[in-house]
Amino acid sequence: MSSAQRLSDSGRGLSKNRIEALTDGIFAVAMTLLILDVKVPKSVRPDELLQGLREVGSECLSFASTFLMLGVYWVGQHNQFHLIRHTDRVVLWINLLFMMTISFVPFSMALLSSYPREPVALAIYGGNLTVIGLVLYGHWWYATYRNRLVDVDLEAHFVRFAARRILIGPAAFTLAIGMAFVSPVASLTIFVATPFIYLLPGKIDRHWSRGHHRSVERGDGEG
Amino acid sequence: MSSAQRLSDSGRGLSKNRIEALTDGIFAVAMTLLILDVKVPKSVRPDELLQGLREVGSECLSFASTFLMLGVYWVGQHNQFHLIRHTDRVVLWINLLFMMTISFVPFSMALLSSYPREPVALAIYGGNLTVIGLVLYGHWWYATYRNRLVDVDLEAHFVRFAARRILIGPAAFTLAIGMAFVSPVASLTIFVATPFIYLLPGKIDRHWSRGHHRSVERGDGEG
Amino acid sequence: MSSAQRLSDSGRGLSKNRIEALTDGIFAVAMTLLILDVKVPKSVRPDELLQGLREVGSECLSFASTFLMLGVYWVGQHNQFHLIRHTDRVVLWINLLFMMTISFVPFSMALLSSYPREPVALAIYGGNLTVIGLVLYGHWWYATYRNRLVDVDLEAHFVRFAARRILIGPAAFTLAIGMAFVSPVASLTIFVATPFIYLLPGKIDRHWSRGHHRSVERGDGEG
Amino acid sequence: MSSAQRLSDSGRGLSKNRIEALTDGIFAVAMTLLILDVKVPKSVRPDELLQGLREVGSECLSFASTFLMLGVYWVGQHNQFHLIRHTDRVVLWINLLFMMTISFVPFSMALLSSYPREPVALAIYGGNLTVIGLVLYGHWWYATYRNRLVDVDLEAHFVRFAARRILIGPAAFTLAIGMAFVSPVASLTIFVATPFIYLLPGKIDRHWSRGHHRSVERGDGEG
Repeated sequence: MSSAQRLSDSGRGLSKNRIEALTDGIFAVAMTLLILDVKVPKSVRPDELLQGLREVGSECLSFASTFLMLGVYWVGQHNQFHLIRHTDRVVLWINLLFMMTISFVPFSMALLSSYPREPVALAIYGGNLTVIGLVLYGHWWYATYRNRLVDVDLEAHFVRFAARRILIGPAAFTLAIGMAFVSPVASLTIFVATPFIYLLPGKIDRHWSRGHHRSVERGDGEG
Repeated sequence: MSSAQRLSDSGRGLSKNRIEALTDGIFAVAMTLLILDVKVPKSVRPDELLQGLREVGSECLSFASTFLMLGVYWVGQHNQFHLIRHTDRVVLWINLLFMMTISFVPFSMALLSSYPREPVALAIYGGNLTVIGLVLYGHWWYATYRNRLVDVDLEAHFVRFAARRILIGPAAFTLAIGMAFVSPVASLTIFVATPFIYLLPGKIDRHWSRGHHRSVERGDGEG
Repeated sequence: MSSAQRLSDSGRGLSKNRIEALTDGIFAVAMTLLILDVKVPKSVRPDELLQGLREVGSECLSFASTFLMLGVYWVGQHNQFHLIRHTDRVVLWINLLFMMTISFVPFSMALLSSYPREPVALAIYGGNLTVIGLVLYGHWWYATYRNRLVDVDLEAHFVRFAARRILIGPAAFTLAIGMAFVSPVASLTIFVATPFIYLLPGKIDRHWSRGHHRSVERGDGEG
Repeated sequence: MSSAQRLSDSGRGLSKNRIEALTDGIFAVAMTLLILDVKVPKSVRPDELLQGLREVGSECLSFASTFLMLGVYWVGQHNQFHLIRHTDRVVLWINLLFMMTISFVPFSMALLSSYPREPVALAIYGGNLTVIGLVLYGHWWYATYRNRLVDVDLEAHFVRFAARRILIGPAAFTLAIGMAFVSPVASLTIFVATPFIYLLPGKIDRHWSRGHHRSVERGDGEG
């Protein structure tokens, strides 16, 4: 009995740990591979290097905003797994799909770096980032629906706030995809600005970082 | 005595943890490196980018199905390690061999991407995926033979069901290798479809995810 | 109450663990990618290989000193996290920024390898390493200001000593940036030498590794 | 007092865990990057693909034996850390040096793949593998000298047996370097064969895997 219990407990913990380990590994590789798309200018006369680096500037901006957006998504998966008590087969597969869309980013960013003003490239890049956000939303929905995989006392309005927050990204990126066919520059601006929406603390953000804990503390006080 | 006990315990746990850590790392790198074979079209006139991306489509399909199949194998190793209580020298080496065959996939997929209709490329890709599956089968056989490294109460029919499930992959891929010399398209279709056999819950699948736990719970009830 | 407590505890621990996991992953990938900039000489007649490898020598030196400097920064983040009791949103974002600057190193080192005598390349490489050091300093300042995230009994003079030690790198690299426009060779020498300042035990170093522990032990004795 | 104790305990454990994490990450990346040196034949007429792949064969052999040798060294570091109770500054730096020599392998193997019959390439590849082994030997010597970082009851003859076993690699590779200038084929054969010396259980091997445990068990029985 005790050994069966241990089996089941350690197994569940292991699952969660190992999904996190693979996720962290894939994020680490994908985020670092992005730098391979910032290219050292070739065949440039040394005294013209500064000139040659000007074109690298936009690649750096593209690298930085993509890196930060992947960071935002990593934090998102991290926060969800923080609250998920156990995993199941569906969660495992949602996570594999999530990792696949993350692994795709070095390609879609390379495409954008090569064709920064092309609507098609902007749309594919934006589409990739949108899908990642939607998979993350699906992950949250699946885990919290009737508190399937989270604590019973996780408050419904916290679940909703978190869900809305996840959708900021996909919403912004969908807008950017639309803008791509009107004004590529506006589209690029949205891509660069979106990570900072998550970075700067806002109303929803205060709720995420404190609101939930407040309710926990209140629970403590009442207990 | 107590310190010797601790040494042995922590050592065994460490071994398992570190094999998992290296395995997860190798999977993360191999799975993410696959995207490097999805190439941004070069020297394409911007207005013909959409045209140029059509050829990328098949590379994306190849990327997605290979990524998912590696995910399936990762889940497989994960599920086996979940049930393995301790490791030994042979398990360590089987795992290194397993990792080597995993690391080989970025090459065999790149070969397939370059020559998608060539029987030889299809056979090498399929051969690689087959060998991974057989190594995983050998791992399971070694660990469960006379319950060598698993719990004594792990049921024999569960062990058999799991073994059969592992062999679905190698069986499908062997068929795909044979088909490669008759109909490359049929062969490719098998490669794309196989991960989904593992994805969709089936009879064997229900047994894996629930049957075993049921028996454990029954054990609890009887204990 | 107990479950809320558990939630909060495990969550905080998880956060710290996962930031460490992603950091370690990014360091591992960035440090290993550096070797891709040490290029095998191409189209060299076999009997002239030794000749061709002479040019590789400076790339190896560049690889080794960059690798060690990243090692120094990894140790720095490691030592700080060792003393940080819990994390918050700001720490998370400082760490993402830190990882971004680490991921940038394979580019700045590749630039330096291609243009080893160009002031602009030296300045960008040095600028990158300086920024990493300053972010690490900011991390330490944020965590220790009024003992925000560290133990209450962490001594003020230890905090200052550690801060000064972190700044050795940025100070040396700022000097190297200035020298780049006067004497590229002197600048390169500073880059190669700096990691060894951290490697060799010195006055400050003894304080780091022993002084703090002494005070802890004294604390123990008095307690 | 209790918190200081916790600080020191968790800190030491953390150190060991994080060195292992970075080591595992670097091994995972380095081992997987090796596959990038197995190149898909370019511009080959499809019906001549099999022909074109013949040259890939030696690259595969080179990949497999290098992968396994890195696996052997990973197991070696793993076994040593298994027995090391705590870490210090010197161990940290030996490990960074160890990781640096591991990261160098994708270069030295790429060099060997490009110039498989050139004594200079064979010597550099062999030199790299020799240095890794010597660093690992230094690691063991430092940790076990007067049982500095290992358990007091770790037996002296076990320490010696393990040390000798580590030196098999460097000894074989030094021989291979010498042979490189006489018979490149003999040199290559030694490189391919060496990992298997560690793979196959031998006299020393039995001691490593069982002798030590036997003595522990004997200790248990006597205690």
